Order: sequence, then structure tokens, then C-alpha cells
Amino acid sequence: MSKKITIIGDGAMATVSALLLENKGYSVTIWGAFADYTAEMIQTRENSRYLPGYKLPDAIKLTSESDRAFRDVDFVINAVPTQYVRTVWSRLADALPAGLPIASLSKGIETDTLLRPTQIITDVLSPLGKQERSLACISGPSVADELAKCLPATVCAASDDADFAKELQETFNTHWFRVYTNSDLLGVELAGATKNVIALAAGMLDGLQAGINAKSALLSRGLAEITRLGLAMGASQETFFGISGVGDLATTCFSPTGRNRTCGEQLGRGRKLDDVLDAIPGIVEGVPTTKSVLQLSEKFKIEMPITEALNMVLFQGLDPLEGISKLMSRGLKAEQIR
Amino acid sequence: MSKKITIIGDGAMATVSALLLENKGYSVTIWGAFADYTAEMIQTRENSRYLPGYKLPDAIKLTSESDRAFRDVDFVINAVPTQYVRTVWSRLADALPAGLPIASLSKGIETDTLLRPTQIITDVLSPLGKQERSLACISGPSVADELAKCLPATVCAASDDADFAKELQETFNTHWFRVYTNSDLLGVELAGATKNVIALAAGMLDGLQAGINAKSALLSRGLAEITRLGLAMGASQETFFGISGVGDLATTCFSPTGRNRTCGEQLGRGRKLDDVLDAIPGIVEGVPTTKSVLQLSEKFKIEMPITEALNMVLFQGLDPLEGISKLMSRGLKAEQIR
Repeated sequence: MSKKITIIGDGAMATVSALLLENKGYSVTIWGAFADYTAEMIQTRENSRYLPGYKLPDAIKLTSESDRAFRDVDFVINAVPTQYVRTVWSRLADALPAGLPIASLSKGIETDTLLRPTQIITDVLSPLGKQERSLACISGPSVADELAKCLPATVCAASDDADFAKELQETFNTHWFRVYTNSDLLGVELAGATKNVIALAAGMLDGLQAGINAKSALLSRGLAEITRLGLAMGASQETFFGISGVGDLATTCFSPTGRNRTCGEQLGRGRKLDDVLDAIPGIVEGVPTTKSVLQLSEKFKIEMPITEALNMVLFQGLDPLEGISKLMSRGLKAEQIR
Repeated sequence: MSKKITIIGDGAMATVSALLLENKGYSVTIWGAFADYTAEMIQTRENSRYLPGYKLPDAIKLTSESDRAFRDVDFVINAVPTQYVRTVWSRLADALPAGLPIASLSKGIETDTLLRPTQIITDVLSPLGKQERSLACISGPSVADELAKCLPATVCAASDDADFAKELQETFNTHWFRVYTNSDLLGVELAGATKNVIALAAGMLDGLQAGINAKSALLSRGLAEITRLGLAMGASQETFFGISGVGDLATTCFSPTGRNRTCGEQLGRGRKLDDVLDAIPGIVEGVPTTKSVLQLSEKFKIEMPITEALNMVLFQGLDPLEGISKLMSRGLKAEQIR
């Protein structure tokens, strides 16, 4: 019998995942948090807000009812913005069957708790005694619009459960979408979250018209600082230098359409954060995550000058140009990553 | 007394180095291999072929006479394309004073000998008993046109001689040009050479309109394969993950104006290599270096699938789209760098 998969979320990544999996012959359900918008998608067979222009085949089921979401399902995909993972899974927790595996696509760190998406889900399920299940994340350079066009891409499926990682690899893999397995769930999830912080700073450089030399230096120094954090937290260095590390970081820093880079660019041009966020549809994951990553750097005593400067620009009114000058004028020294 | 520096070469990097150093108050001479063109630059005070639009201050001396090049000079910069380093230094060797330190900006591997630029220089000087001197390379994300505009940039000054690296750092460093020292001359020089190979492949993806997900995946898999080669040859892993590794790689893969990326893009659009090379002014370092890197991979028994596929496209008539398909359709596996 065909595999059944439910996707939690109605954003661009949720939708392209549904398109890919339906096209491979799986039975796919999209669960959306907003009944009105789900009803609209059912009627128009299009996600006009987050992935306009792509028809949702009739075989893709859409619902916003929790008890329908998990019927006979083989595994679940979490594809909601990080700061909403807690709310959404609190709503779904009662209906969620014991042991059903969950793979997460979210890229961020929850503010205050400093938890990664899969940790938030565990945190929600623990009081109900439902935390025992395989968890994974899928992450890599994956601009949704390109995936919708079936352009070539690669991601990592990372899990402590090697069988689940392998199942995700086999389920998602196509001739244009290449999935690598990875055992470093912590590292892959952390790399996916922290790259959005660096991409905000990269966008600021674009807004300041600082050039590609500066942006690439930022990418490499940014990679060094998020790797340092990852190592301190127990992640593998190789993860940060793989597709879900430097690969995703490069895409996010250079893709002209990315929300985090675009937000940074607008800040670099001198616009105010609130105005910029109002104008960008959807969630700019890097903004709340910057706060979380800064707190993690303090907790693990890791020097993260880019995150620090960005945090001052975002939340303390530092001028972007001054932020960059601060970074450039640090004392002369030898290059080091750790 | 002011430091005296001679730059060997009349390309874009030679010229921006001269502008930067002259602006810091040093006494700078540019040595060009072609007397006619040097005479033209003396008259017009502009390098119209390789860095048009920037006036060469009168204080910058220009010559193509070997015996004038090294008079009372503190150190020398090598800034000629890799495949011409041997010819140029064979011409200069007699006039070169014993012990005068040389820092190289060239980014390639000589065909047949498989030597790095500083090794070629040593190879030329050895028969004359003149090989004993400090050697360094300066490398990093440094698109010349941006340097000419004084946009922010960072590079590594790498040498076995820590004092020379430090001298280069102090000599070149400005508030917009940040120089890190590095002791891994082999790694920095190798990273600078091999990134041009990956950039050619990245350009091919652009020509095929494969998208930014694919290009970033290629960047990360390419970084993995040039790092594997570097490790086998004795370089430090950290170098490849620093500004002269991943930083320079990102610039070269994403800068729209880069010669190697542009060459790859034209190939991806189906044009023939000879026609493409004819149309690009200056040397596309990555083309001969691909051959050299493939030979190094065989010598050190390192799997380099991107270099291999690129070599088949460049020299054996493989269709670029088939080359990419070959890379994408390799068996499913776990991610690994080493």
C-alpha cells in the first residue's frame, strides 16, 4: 500500500514537499492552522499566498482538523515557522498517535527556551507522555520556488534513528532532489537555524553596497562563528562544512529572493525593522533567532562577533554601517576557526 | 625611509595592489612583461586593458626592464597568471637579488609539473642557487574591481616565515582591507588554485539555469573535494574553511564578473571552449588548473567527482548537462567530507 504522509503547515516548504511526495505516488495531507485559508486552498487548489502559480493536484488532501491529520499516517512533516511550533503542536498533541515519527523542516531557535524545533515538539509532548518517537530534520540549500520547478537540489535527512533517516532519504529522493543521510540531528538543525542570522548580516552588506568580497568574507567568518557554537553544543564540525551547513548558508546569503537576506538588505538601506517586517510576507526566522543565538553564545561562552553586531542593529538601534565598521576594525590577528 | 615594493605583472590584481600600497605611502614599481604595453601605461597613466577607469598616480613607477625592477626593494609581489610564472621568473632570475622575499598573488597549479606558484618560483631559482628566501602568498575573496573602489575585503597572508607574513599584514592592512596571517602556505595557495575549478563548474550550472540550490550544493561538495585533496597533500582543514578557502570560493562562484564563473556559464550555454576563451580578456586560470588538479587527485588517490566531470566537459567533449546529471545520479549515501 502507498505510504501516507501528513505535512503540518501551509507555507511554501510545506507545499513543495506535498507536491514532490504526491508526484512520487504517496498519499499526502496538508494540515493548515487557519481553517479559512485551508478552505480557500481547497477551493482554488493553489497556495496563492506562499507558493502562487502551482496547482495542487486533487490527490493532495487539505485539512485544518487535528483528528483528521494523523489517520493511518506513516510519518509527519513539521513545516511551521519555529516561533509557532509550540502553539501548533500544543493544538495537535492530543490527536497525535504514540510513536508516530516526525521530521522537521523548520529553521530557527525558539526565543527564551533556546530550543531547536524538534526539541520544542518533545517539550510539548513530554507532559502527555508522548515524547517517545523518532525525530528527524531535513535541511539544506532548498529555496522553495526552485524546488517547485523541479530544479536540482540536495538536502540532509538527519536523525538519531538511522532507519528513519534512511526512510526519509528513500521517500524524498528523486532524480533531481538528492537526499543524504546524516546522524548529527543537533548539528543539522542548528546549522539551519544559525545560517539565517548570518544571512541577515549578509543582506545588510548588500543594502550598504559593500560588495561580494565583503559578503564572502562575512560568509566565511559567519560559518566560523556558527561552527564554534555548534562544536561547543556537541555538533559535528563536518555538518557545518556540508550541504546543510555551508551549502544552505551560501544559498541564503546569495539568493536574491530569500526573506532573511532581503530583510537585512532593507535594514542596510536604513529602513526600520518593524517597517521591513511588515512589508515581507511570512516570517523572517532569523530575527527572533538572532536573539536566541546570542543567548546561546553567552550560555556556551562562545565569541560570536557577527551575531553580536547584528543583534545591536536589530534591537538596539545600532547603525548598520557602524556595525560593519566594528567588525572590520577588530585588531589584526591570525586566522582561526575554533 | 619608506618601504619599496615591486609588483611583477600588469594585470588587474597587480594594479590594485599598486594603488593600495601607493596610497599607504610606499614606493611602488610595477614591472610588466610587455614593453609596449608598459610604455602605453606610462603615457596614459591607466591600465586600460585590465583595470580601466582608474588613474595610476605619478608616484607609481612602471618598467619592463629586469635590472630596474629590484633596485633597493624590500620585497616583491608576484602577480602574473600561473601558467606564465615560469617564463616571467626565468627572465627575472638573473637580476633578482639573493634573499629578497617574494609574495605571490597567482591562483593556479602549473600543468605537467603540478607545482603551486611559489614552488614554480623556487624551481626556477634553484639551478641558480637563488632559492633561499622567504616566500608567501596572499589570497582571499578579492575581486579586483571592488578593491579598486576601496570596498571592504579580507585576505590571508600565508608564509612559513611568520615574520614575513606579519610584514605583509602590516604593509597591506588598511581600514577597509583586512589582512589575516596564516602559517599554511600550502593550503592557502592550493585553496586559491582549486576554487577556480569549482567556479568553472558553478558557472556551468548558471549557464544551464540550474538555480541557486544546485550551485550552493556544488559549492559545498566542491569545498569537500578540494579539502580532501588539501588534507592528502598536507594542508590544514581550517584553511579551506577560512576566508581564503570557502570565502574566496563563494566570491568566485557568485561574482557575476569573475572570469572562471563566466567561462563556465558560456560552456553551460553550449558554446565551445576555444570560442569562450577567445572572447574573455585575460587568462581563465581554472581551465589549465582543472587538468593539473585532476592529475593531483590521481597522484594522491583522492575522489574528486566534480573536477573529473568538469575535465570531461572541458577537454573530452562531454555535454555540460550530462556532466551535471552524472554528479546528481551518484548512489544514495550518507554525507561525508573526508
